[in-house]
Amino acid sequence: MVAFPLPPGSTIGILGGGQLGRMLALAAAKLGLKTHIYCPEAGSPAFDVAADFTCAAYEDAEALSRFAASVDVVTYEFENVPGQTAAILGAAVAVAPAASILAITQDRLTEKRFIEAQGIPVPAFANVESLDDLHAAMALLGTPCVLKTRTMGYDGKGQAKIMSPAEAEAAWHAIGRKPAIAEAFVPFSAEVSVIVARGRDGQTAVFDIPLNEHRNHILHRSSVPSGLSEATEKAAREIGQKLAQSFDYVGVMAVELFVVGDRLLVNEIAPRVHNSGHWTESACMSSQFEQHIRAVAGWPLAATERFADVEMTNLIGAELEDWAKLAAEPGAALHLYGKAEARQGRKMGHVNRLKQR
Amino acid sequence: MVAFPLPPGSTIGILGGGQLGRMLALAAAKLGLKTHIYCPEAGSPAFDVAADFTCAAYEDAEALSRFAASVDVVTYEFENVPGQTAAILGAAVAVAPAASILAITQDRLTEKRFIEAQGIPVPAFANVESLDDLHAAMALLGTPCVLKTRTMGYDGKGQAKIMSPAEAEAAWHAIGRKPAIAEAFVPFSAEVSVIVARGRDGQTAVFDIPLNEHRNHILHRSSVPSGLSEATEKAAREIGQKLAQSFDYVGVMAVELFVVGDRLLVNEIAPRVHNSGHWTESACMSSQFEQHIRAVAGWPLAATERFADVEMTNLIGAELEDWAKLAAEPGAALHLYGKAEARQGRKMGHVNRLKQR
Repeated sequence: MVAFPLPPGSTIGILGGGQLGRMLALAAAKLGLKTHIYCPEAGSPAFDVAADFTCAAYEDAEALSRFAASVDVVTYEFENVPGQTAAILGAAVAVAPAASILAITQDRLTEKRFIEAQGIPVPAFANVESLDDLHAAMALLGTPCVLKTRTMGYDGKGQAKIMSPAEAEAAWHAIGRKPAIAEAFVPFSAEVSVIVARGRDGQTAVFDIPLNEHRNHILHRSSVPSGLSEATEKAAREIGQKLAQSFDYVGVMAVELFVVGDRLLVNEIAPRVHNSGHWTESACMSSQFEQHIRAVAGWPLAATERFADVEMTNLIGAELEDWAKLAAEPGAALHLYGKAEARQGRKMGHVNRLKQR
Repeated sequence: MVAFPLPPGSTIGILGGGQLGRMLALAAAKLGLKTHIYCPEAGSPAFDVAADFTCAAYEDAEALSRFAASVDVVTYEFENVPGQTAAILGAAVAVAPAASILAITQDRLTEKRFIEAQGIPVPAFANVESLDDLHAAMALLGTPCVLKTRTMGYDGKGQAKIMSPAEAEAAWHAIGRKPAIAEAFVPFSAEVSVIVARGRDGQTAVFDIPLNEHRNHILHRSSVPSGLSEATEKAAREIGQKLAQSFDYVGVMAVELFVVGDRLLVNEIAPRVHNSGHWTESACMSSQFEQHIRAVAGWPLAATERFADVEMTNLIGAELEDWAKLAAEPGAALHLYGKAEARQGRKMGHVNRLKQR
């Protein structure tokens, strides 16, 4: 195994070639580090900015071995890395964040139990493996409640809202009758997230807390400052740091939180850079992407100081067509992902609107 | 020929694969544009961050034609693009800035005459094609004076200082008895530069003026603000804008200026992004690299607003060895170029030190 910190000229392997992998590769380049992207989809956006890429299936053990041999450390842009993929890589090369963290966060049930075990509040939930379990859960949690598959859910996929017990069976079928959790409906006043970085030396650094607004279950906008009280922001930062410590985490992770009055409940953890942290690239001393690369490479973390108020808005699908108007907007930093097709619901870019203080 | 503005997904061809080409490629990627780097040196730093690259000689007409056919527009990171190279490309694809500007700025004599013709002061100079010419020039300009080859000089190469007429012959031999100019010694109090962008629509945008310090004829540090008076800075900006207009320029250019009392004299023009503008990436709404790509692609220019005071320091040769210390310095944004060998005098990276206002 390699020694950390990795010197300039080393190669970071990245699983996943979407916009997050691409922005990680750009950040690595600024630090004089090479990247090698591994992704099954031909024409992945990150391929265009990396020194090397492998286009192969995550199940292709031979391609994975060649990839592992060509890089100094492996990281990833998405949490649903198959366990077998992580195991093959982990046997050959340092992987960060650790595969054990993936295993926990890939499953809503183990994730929630892990968070609870740290003494951090989550919405009330129950394990659901059958329609009977679901009825029992509703008796406990009341309605409305939300049924979510334990694995592979994102951007609202694999979820069904249940307004009354009569809707239980339909919901159970809607999510494909898969192992799930039922979650009490949370009457939140706001959604925020914590973007926390933790280095190999155990140091943590937290960015300011963004307020997040969703549309159709997809992040629409993140605004900083969040408008929360100083005390609530402090509590949010502490949750992020505590979870990063508990995982012995290396890299950047995001914790999505519901704000209910002055209480915070963890919605979910993303063991990776996160859409709600894209504003850091325009408004801070360092970006979440640079922090992740620094952590993974064993470098010291950078300062997270913010020098402007900022609002990040996603460009989804056909919204990309506004690129020329956005390019001409003063105070707007446009970031496009180089995706060939602007499919519906697809994240095509974002714009960071800065307000000087 | 292609229509401007180039939409996201278009390809910018860049001649030259050094750090400037690399930073241009990174800026293009942020705008969803692909890059194709053309450079004769194997392992050029920009290859690692581009969608495609061609490693071939600038004289390779066939490779140039293939390159031209694969891109939507061509630009360059260095001014000494051979005329024949520019001609081959120009016949097949849009080239910006125009080849005619290269022809002027590649020759110190035509460059100085062009600047004078715009009514902009330059140090007194004389054409030198022989030792006799040099003696005549010294009678006119006095000593000390500086003898500079008309072409291919940079970072102090192709220059000789002459302290007294007795040194004339040695200086003439030192520069290889090539066509040259003799320039009056300028007792400047400071060196500054103007980084000006001009779009295809004729709009210009100027960054704040950096104060530049050299060591061994290589830029050591650029500081912003410059410490010059408001009036002198305004005059500097106007010189930059006037020259960009005179050239009908498209892209970013840098004008190096000597400050003598409250007078400004143009030292030289770089028809490209410039080392003294590297701080823009950390301290401004947009970087010089993004501006250049926007201009070349026919996009509107971005805002040049600066939100922090900043000092850019080059890392030359073995200074790269300090990377770990610099990575740990709060408030320092480190940018390394991914060059394999830290040869003496080679620019390996830079650090932007920010001071919040």
